[in-house]
Amino acid sequence: MNYPNNIKKKYHKPISHANRGMDLEEVINETNDYYLSNDIALIYKKPTPIGIDKVIFENNSNIITRAFFKEPSTLDYNGLYKGRYIEFDAKETTSKTSFPLQNIHPHQIRHIKRVIKHNGIAFLIIRIMNIDYYLDGNDFLFFIDNEKRKSVPYEFIKMNGRELKYNYNKGIDYLKIVDELYISKGEKNESKKEKS
Amino acid sequence: MNYPNNIKKKYHKPISHANRGMDLEEVINETNDYYLSNDIALIYKKPTPIGIDKVIFENNSNIITRAFFKEPSTLDYNGLYKGRYIEFDAKETTSKTSFPLQNIHPHQIRHIKRVIKHNGIAFLIIRIMNIDYYLDGNDFLFFIDNEKRKSVPYEFIKMNGRELKYNYNKGIDYLKIVDELYISKGEKNESKKEKS
Repeated sequence: MNYPNNIKKKYHKPISHANRGMDLEEVINETNDYYLSNDIALIYKKPTPIGIDKVIFENNSNIITRAFFKEPSTLDYNGLYKGRYIEFDAKETTSKTSFPLQNIHPHQIRHIKRVIKHNGIAFLIIRIMNIDYYLDGNDFLFFIDNEKRKSVPYEFIKMNGRELKYNYNKGIDYLKIVDELYISKGEKNESKKEKS
Repeated sequence: MNYPNNIKKKYHKPISHANRGMDLEEVINETNDYYLSNDIALIYKKPTPIGIDKVIFENNSNIITRAFFKEPSTLDYNGLYKGRYIEFDAKETTSKTSFPLQNIHPHQIRHIKRVIKHNGIAFLIIRIMNIDYYLDGNDFLFFIDNEKRKSVPYEFIKMNGRELKYNYNKGIDYLKIVDELYISKGEKNESKKEKS
């Protein structure tokens, strides 16, 4: 279940982590702010889906007095980078050996497949053992489609993922990996095409 | 202010409209469902941003007992079509002569500029005089940058927009216009390039 920032802080016991002790969500927000303010990309966290049961009108505005958290069917973050559609989710695990798949709902897995099929870029940012990893959607799906395990072993993440190091200016610059995997690759192919 | 579907129905007096009397939001949801179920595109309405003040724990789940609607700083819908990033907003006006710009916040206008700058596709769907129009982000920005009026005249929308006719299967197939303006245009240019 995903909670908005303020709820998370109030109702969840904070866990001490790497990256200046910042929550993974905080680090990603910082990174997205860096992208936005430097005009690099537009990446936003989607608002938490909420089902509203009761609203009252008070002091000239609508106040919600009864509502509940809904399960998201897509990933938490999406946006635009160099004309490409980006969508990803951020997950933390306290496990030292694997990333439990119960963290990701079946409809989210279906969604990752769809994004890739429609030529978008999908990935996960996984924090395990206090290290943040970029795990590409294609690698994640390869695991899901070929393994029956209920968790992704840390070894798989280390082997197939890319470590995201924290930087005071840029946060965890995950688009650098997107660039390497998708953008400059495409540019290289195009320049090859032109030459041939 | 944007309300989620259920709130809109309960707290706003319904206005009779074209397209089987459906609310513009309903028609767009229907269209997006058509795109999703036919594997044409992934377009979602973003959840309404909500600020949460109070949560209680009841019957094994977190219940929000005090919250408020926040102003969105991006557009209401976004997604992925043929590898391209799509973002748009849907607006209805009861005015018969123009679309009042107070319907769109300055930060949303800034956002449209950014989306276009980063090679995304941005537009508005405007319902005026019971007709739904696609108005491209570039045309909308042209008006904003060149006119000092506080509303977009209906004539401008008719001249520069494209009428979206309702179809029982497809809803209002706005991606057909996106195709014409962006996708097939690109394909044509590419095939030209290859020939030359």
